[in-house]
Amino acid sequence: MKIVAIIGARPQFIKHFPFELASKGKVELITVHTGQHYDENMSDIFFTQLNMSPPSFTLHVGSGPHGEQTGKMMIEIEKIIEETKPDGVVVYGDTNSTLAGALVASKLHIPLFHIEAGLRSFNKKMPEEVNRVLTDHISDLLFVPSGIAVQNLKDEGVEQGVYEVGDIMKDLVQYVTKNDLLRDHAPKEKNFYYATIHRPYNTDDKERLTYVLETLEQLDKKVIFSLHPRTKNLASYYGLNLEDYINISFIEPQSYFSNLAYLQNSEGLITDSGGMQKEAYWLKRKCITIRKETEWKETLEDNANILLFQDLSKINDELEKKPLSYNINLYGQGSSASKMVDKIIQFIN
Amino acid sequence: MKIVAIIGARPQFIKHFPFELASKGKVELITVHTGQHYDENMSDIFFTQLNMSPPSFTLHVGSGPHGEQTGKMMIEIEKIIEETKPDGVVVYGDTNSTLAGALVASKLHIPLFHIEAGLRSFNKKMPEEVNRVLTDHISDLLFVPSGIAVQNLKDEGVEQGVYEVGDIMKDLVQYVTKNDLLRDHAPKEKNFYYATIHRPYNTDDKERLTYVLETLEQLDKKVIFSLHPRTKNLASYYGLNLEDYINISFIEPQSYFSNLAYLQNSEGLITDSGGMQKEAYWLKRKCITIRKETEWKETLEDNANILLFQDLSKINDELEKKPLSYNINLYGQGSSASKMVDKIIQFIN
Ligand SMILES: O=c1ccn([C@@H]2O[C@H](COP(=O)(O)OP(=O)(O)O)[C@@H](O)[C@H]2O)c(=O)[nH]1
Ligand SMILES: O=c1ccn([C@@H]2O[C@H](COP(=O)(O)OP(=O)(O)O)[C@@H](O)[C@H]2O)c(=O)[nH]1
Repeated sequence: MKIVAIIGARPQFIKHFPFELASKGKVELITVHTGQHYDENMSDIFFTQLNMSPPSFTLHVGSGPHGEQTGKMMIEIEKIIEETKPDGVVVYGDTNSTLAGALVASKLHIPLFHIEAGLRSFNKKMPEEVNRVLTDHISDLLFVPSGIAVQNLKDEGVEQGVYEVGDIMKDLVQYVTKNDLLRDHAPKEKNFYYATIHRPYNTDDKERLTYVLETLEQLDKKVIFSLHPRTKNLASYYGLNLEDYINISFIEPQSYFSNLAYLQNSEGLITDSGGMQKEAYWLKRKCITIRKETEWKETLEDNANILLFQDLSKINDELEKKPLSYNINLYGQGSSASKMVDKIIQFIN
Repeated sequence: MKIVAIIGARPQFIKHFPFELASKGKVELITVHTGQHYDENMSDIFFTQLNMSPPSFTLHVGSGPHGEQTGKMMIEIEKIIEETKPDGVVVYGDTNSTLAGALVASKLHIPLFHIEAGLRSFNKKMPEEVNRVLTDHISDLLFVPSGIAVQNLKDEGVEQGVYEVGDIMKDLVQYVTKNDLLRDHAPKEKNFYYATIHRPYNTDDKERLTYVLETLEQLDKKVIFSLHPRTKNLASYYGLNLEDYINISFIEPQSYFSNLAYLQNSEGLITDSGGMQKEAYWLKRKCITIRKETEWKETLEDNANILLFQDLSKINDELEKKPLSYNINLYGQGSSASKMVDKIIQFIN
């Protein structure tokens, strides 16, 4: 049995790892790296650190306007699928690589499997939201992490092929903690907040980005900020001098282990990332999400995660309120990948 | 107010005509012809005969695998939208041109208006079905022809921006009959059935296409068959000699008026076209649809339209049973385009 997996952006390399592990000896995996993320520390580092197979095909699509990026991916992915004739196609999450792979598989009538299906922010201005909704409506198997996601799909009339299997990123976090893999990555710094910010609504406008940075500058603890290439490029385009922010240390995008180690050793996370809201929850770090809404609604319970957007002045107060409890079963028990592989094999046979 | 309209396939040129007429003096229209259909009698003839403005941009995307075709369109449409900066994008129906235009508009956050929204065959193996569902989920205004279409969208959780305005193809059929435009196009032949067949499930397999043609060969009346380029190419690829079918006269794809004149003068239609099921209804010709399902369910009432697929031996019997009545209000009163233009103007302002 042969499956093509489409990956292209940082969170997808990470999600792919448990899937590759669970596929071993069961499914022949052909990975297509679209080249959506291509910097060494946004891409290669994950393959090396997690000891993943190098991609079978790499497309070098790079950045560019969304339509061009998605269009170019579709043209190339189609050729690979025609050539390799897989029994199914796996796509992860909500990027343009997800949508491009999904559209091609659907048009060629190749069974399509969506990992991390059913999530909704209900904000159609997010490119991710459009990618998610569209991918879900053409998938044959939809692997969802939670009951809310099942309900979201039901509300859109999608009920067939939906399986609540837990979250694949939890598999990896559990693997990491069980094997004590963060040990050698603990940062030297102590008593800091960790931050990652890169979404358009926080970065695509000079005033907004400045407001976010100035807020971090005023916090009561030092902020270590993992600087996404998007944010870095926009800051430089706006002529912001990042060295002026003396309370913020900007660091390069981190390897997976090092990123989690920063998070685990922090006094709290400030982020607009999807995946990091969950990782903060699983590692029991307080999370402040700089957004109006989240797809990961369950993390909001018991104030483990807080949404702030217009008025960021409350970040410090909120960071101090630690949640009383964490649901250790949130988004599954860390064994979702092998459930998915089994369902896929069953579907194809 | 500036609107980009995306057209590319025969039925879209036809649907565009009433929209162009209704836009005059109200909206500046920029038309993008993707080049999905490019033969003289699949494209140019409609612009000439209906006296439409020539496309503002023509892309020459041509035929090709779906992913490549859609991908190339997206890349080019995006450039045009970036250049012309419209206030909205109009797409029609369910082709790859529809989807490409819709995806680009949605990614650029340009308001998207879908004409002929909400239709469903519930057959995801039809490329048209995928195009429809996806386009509907990212449209800001959804112009639907019927109550069933409203309900289909509701079942998928789409309720905002949905307007039941009638069918734009009815506008044109009414315009044609009111102005007696078929007069000069009446065929010489009498006492015949008219046929158009081009969908993959009837043509993509040699045996199936042969079965369809052999069935037509056995009918009690002569069959005039408007030969779609798809069907022509596949028949020749299978080595079928169309001249062997002595009961069938194959004719080139017809102009709009001539096609309707054949239909009107026929003893019934045998088709797998979407649009022609409705045109047969409005012109009160019995229709046999060679499919398992139809998006145009309302036409099935009172046996005005009959679905046949596995066993085609009943075509003759069915053609003889004429429906007792036609609902003259089916799919509106022929004034849908001006309603759409008004809603669009209201939405943008
Ligand atoms: O410097 C960093 C920042 C994040 N991540 C990981 O990248 C994933 C999240 O990716 P991102 O925030 O880019 O995307 P999103 O989750 O919002 O789709 C998570 O698994 C993080 O642990 C990382 O490895 N290094
Ligand atoms: O020889 C022909 C056959 C069809 N049509 C018109 O083409 C439209 C239907 O197009 P098609 O069957 O290609 O597509 P569908 O409606 O199935 O999407 C209808 O308005 C027909 O009147 C035409 O002008 N000439």
